[in-house]
Amino acid sequence: MIRTPISALPAVVGSTVAGSTVTIAGWVQALRLQRAMQFIIIRDHSGTVQVTHRRDGGPLEAVLEGLTAESAVRITGQVKANPVVSLGGIELIPETVAVENLAQAPLPIDERTGPEGRQDWRFLDVRRRPVARLVFEVQTTVEQAMREFAFTEGCTEMHTPKLMGTASESGAEVFELGYFGRKAYLAQSPQFYKQMAIAAGVDRVFEIGPVFRAEPSFTSRHTTEFTGVDVELAWIDSVEDVMSFEEQMLAHVLATVAAAHGAAIEEHFKTEVTVPRLPFPRLTMAEALQISGTGSADSGRADLDHAGEQAVGARVLAETGHEFAFVTEYPASVRPFYHLRPDGKPQLTASFDLLWKGLEITTGAQREHRYDVLLAQATEKGLRPEPMADYLNCFRYGCPPHGGFGLGLGRLLMVLLGLDSIRDATFLFRGPNRLTP
Amino acid sequence: MIRTPISALPAVVGSTVAGSTVTIAGWVQALRLQRAMQFIIIRDHSGTVQVTHRRDGGPLEAVLEGLTAESAVRITGQVKANPVVSLGGIELIPETVAVENLAQAPLPIDERTGPEGRQDWRFLDVRRRPVARLVFEVQTTVEQAMREFAFTEGCTEMHTPKLMGTASESGAEVFELGYFGRKAYLAQSPQFYKQMAIAAGVDRVFEIGPVFRAEPSFTSRHTTEFTGVDVELAWIDSVEDVMSFEEQMLAHVLATVAAAHGAAIEEHFKTEVTVPRLPFPRLTMAEALQISGTGSADSGRADLDHAGEQAVGARVLAETGHEFAFVTEYPASVRPFYHLRPDGKPQLTASFDLLWKGLEITTGAQREHRYDVLLAQATEKGLRPEPMADYLNCFRYGCPPHGGFGLGLGRLLMVLLGLDSIRDATFLFRGPNRLTP
Repeated sequence: MIRTPISALPAVVGSTVAGSTVTIAGWVQALRLQRAMQFIIIRDHSGTVQVTHRRDGGPLEAVLEGLTAESAVRITGQVKANPVVSLGGIELIPETVAVENLAQAPLPIDERTGPEGRQDWRFLDVRRRPVARLVFEVQTTVEQAMREFAFTEGCTEMHTPKLMGTASESGAEVFELGYFGRKAYLAQSPQFYKQMAIAAGVDRVFEIGPVFRAEPSFTSRHTTEFTGVDVELAWIDSVEDVMSFEEQMLAHVLATVAAAHGAAIEEHFKTEVTVPRLPFPRLTMAEALQISGTGSADSGRADLDHAGEQAVGARVLAETGHEFAFVTEYPASVRPFYHLRPDGKPQLTASFDLLWKGLEITTGAQREHRYDVLLAQATEKGLRPEPMADYLNCFRYGCPPHGGFGLGLGRLLMVLLGLDSIRDATFLFRGPNRLTP
Repeated sequence: MIRTPISALPAVVGSTVAGSTVTIAGWVQALRLQRAMQFIIIRDHSGTVQVTHRRDGGPLEAVLEGLTAESAVRITGQVKANPVVSLGGIELIPETVAVENLAQAPLPIDERTGPEGRQDWRFLDVRRRPVARLVFEVQTTVEQAMREFAFTEGCTEMHTPKLMGTASESGAEVFELGYFGRKAYLAQSPQFYKQMAIAAGVDRVFEIGPVFRAEPSFTSRHTTEFTGVDVELAWIDSVEDVMSFEEQMLAHVLATVAAAHGAAIEEHFKTEVTVPRLPFPRLTMAEALQISGTGSADSGRADLDHAGEQAVGARVLAETGHEFAFVTEYPASVRPFYHLRPDGKPQLTASFDLLWKGLEITTGAQREHRYDVLLAQATEKGLRPEPMADYLNCFRYGCPPHGGFGLGLGRLLMVLLGLDSIRDATFLFRGPNRLTP
């Protein structure tokens, strides 16, 4: 059976080629069963069309009369122009209707259902709202544009393990599982393993995969499982090489998204996709703290909170017109032990966060690649070297200078599409209170 | 600093443009410190080159003398043609040498190290063997070619959760973890979730991601965590649509790999990449069992074991010259409850395995999309519907006919490159006895 996407029907009716008989496949979006006429709106992944049937007492009338909302049907019929039809000025006059799966009635959700109920019935919620599916089409384009850029730049796509023998990085916020009579842990990031790939001679590492955070956070920006985009680059001269890679990658991504989905995003999400100028603005953490007015780089409270990030984003936008801002030189006190500390500035790190419209979407850094310095910094942070011996061993046998970043795909989509919650950027959200569906 | 890949050095020496001074960055592969001369072989991700220094009692001599195998260095110097040099007829005359990370000596592995020791020091093993890194370059090409094909065919890339609230599919072979005071499970495949995406109106689903199997298997083909490639297609007419998608995808993949890496694969792995003819041969399970001589479709032992798969692959190759074989119509007794059973053949399933050179690389099927039939088949298999209520609910509200397949990326690489073990197709292998590095 050749199926015609509903979005292609106007071209069929306009075609002079013989035969405007087509088969469509989709779901019953609405039924209007009138005394003389039966009107059915069918939705597929590409659009909606009206099916029009004049009652004649025949078997087709009975089939249509038995339909329910969201039933899955295949309909073969003639596409006709009809200027009276508000839905695109065309209609389908059915000849055969096959009911592939009759939906039970009533549906478990409707327009009044709250966010938790919509999560419970996520498949129905996504199916009924084309705007929800557009998120995943944009996600596909975003990832593919990232890969295009990364491979042009010489990256190799690696798949690092999500099962770890030790909770190496911090011990906190890691899920623990039973593993053939011992314990294993879920990777909270590919950090150590992508560095291991650098030590393995992979010149530039790219990975998109799940990361797991056992954080009991209930904000609109947190989730216990999300898709991370990770890049790690060998032989860098400084962290500037990492920022340069990322800003070029994002400019390519946004240009690709604007071309592929710009109009649809503006229509459905009321937000414009702007291709950013290069380079992105950069400011140091000390400057950022002055703007946010929360703590200073010398004090213990030297990190930006969410409100601080928003203040910095707003100031940079006002002063430069730019939606992005690299905040650099985070204090060593708020960064992991493996961030490199610049020569002569032992209290700082060669690191950055990237803010987009005031939301942190990335953390990056040059890594400390000198074994003795790395060991000293780990000890200073109170970490025991034994559980991370495999990681530390990478630095004993010729590890090159390197750096990279990790980017949250859901957060990027949130900002790109102006979504209120990361739940809307995720097909099946996972949080401390949600493990289903 | 502009770094020149070692593979580009012959072009530099051949160039008439002024200046054959370059900087290379890599690892010390070999040191030959003679009375008058110091020879050092440097390896980067792209190749190897000889560095030649005539002793002069200066500081450069001392730096070179202090080098150790696998130290990470940056060397600036003049590229010169020298027909005496066996390594490509060129050499680098060093001007400055920066030791970025001096490797400890001796190295923990050498040519006599066995497979477990090489796994322990995987980063060094991969770095020292360019053929090991070629696996990941091929992997990158394979995945990207799959995506090209999938997106051309209208797929959307989805990221389904790896954390599940119930061990839904079978209850066996699933890792269990603690999750905020309750239990969670690691997805042993995206099966249920990719079907949920179909029910959500995503027309064609594509996913590459980790899958987890708590199987105590110790063969060269099994691992507890591997990268799965999953496809699910809505509105199919039959399982033939799924097989057709897969064989076209693999033909595109192999054509792309042959073009990008064919010569390198032949050189390093002594195996030729053949672009397969379409369609792939198809034979039923009943026919396969006659060939393998192990059990019959009517008996309880109606599945192919590894030796049976090899026998079938050999027979198909002998009779058709084709490396691939779809084995179809597996008995319902050896297939999951959600495989559709063909009309009038309730003891069979509309399913297939794909063998490549006698190794199973894929399982696929049309899925049962009718709620009542699905429920009956689950009950027949002794499964309780309650733990998989979220899954079953997808079939109550208009689920279209659909089908798909799952492919093991590591197994595909094993066959493509003629690797003895899936360990060699995986950056960091995970097995019942191995959770590190």
